[in-house]
Amino acid sequence: MASKAFQDYYPDDMSYCYGCGRLNEFGHQIKSYWDGEESVCEYLPKEFHTAVPGYVYGGLIASIIDCHGTGTAAAASFRAEENVTGSDQYPRFVTASLHVDYLKPTPLGVPLQLRGTIMEINSRKVIVSVDLHANGEQCVKGEVIAVRIPESMLAKK
Amino acid sequence: MASKAFQDYYPDDMSYCYGCGRLNEFGHQIKSYWDGEESVCEYLPKEFHTAVPGYVYGGLIASIIDCHGTGTAAAASFRAEENVTGSDQYPRFVTASLHVDYLKPTPLGVPLQLRGTIMEINSRKVIVSVDLHANGEQCVKGEVIAVRIPESMLAKK
Repeated sequence: MASKAFQDYYPDDMSYCYGCGRLNEFGHQIKSYWDGEESVCEYLPKEFHTAVPGYVYGGLIASIIDCHGTGTAAAASFRAEENVTGSDQYPRFVTASLHVDYLKPTPLGVPLQLRGTIMEINSRKVIVSVDLHANGEQCVKGEVIAVRIPESMLAKK
Repeated sequence: MASKAFQDYYPDDMSYCYGCGRLNEFGHQIKSYWDGEESVCEYLPKEFHTAVPGYVYGGLIASIIDCHGTGTAAAASFRAEENVTGSDQYPRFVTASLHVDYLKPTPLGVPLQLRGTIMEINSRKVIVSVDLHANGEQCVKGEVIAVRIPESMLAKK
């Protein structure tokens, strides 16, 4: 597995995301990598990320699916364009739409494994399907429609 | 507006949710109320709840839509059943499915207004549509399919 995660290739000023920004000291700082054609991420929720006692908060699950999805979109887009810019920085994608099906309760206290699959990709939009497993069982299925960050969001940089 | 929020009617052992549990000291502790037939919630994100600088993290938005949706489901179910149990505690609903469309970037630094509408309700399932506004503009549209908490999730109490 590569030593640098997808999120380590974001420019500094795009690295303050609460879910995945390496420079957000209060955030989750998730890390995603390629594993063949799939993308993987492992995350251990904190003990206070509770839904009801013993289970992981669904909003946290949505959050890490979201960031693993946009990270996978960025990495896939970078790879597809064969790095034509000469830069090693990934393009930044944001979420247009997020869908999460909670198939069964997700146990708290064990690492969560996320696997992303590219369902569709073009220069502007990437659709990523994300499966979440805990203790070897699939608990959640998500889908992220990620789009290139709009100019309007860069204006506040 | 009522002084007690929907979430204040959850039993103590169902009040540790990271998004809405009044007993989770690390969580968001959102509060939802009726406003006529709609449910409302106002939440001011922390300055570190960043997506890219200047905008709110989408995972946080998904989280508060999720909890406002399940809270609205609980309150609507309690109201529909005319409190036949004689208890003033709300039934607890969990999320089966969450969908969030990010219509435009949500600005950070201002309170977010959420309004919930009951789309469908029966004894087991409630579908809630949630609109999120900031600075008077709708930024996000969400939908929560909430179901009565399964027995399997109560077993760990």
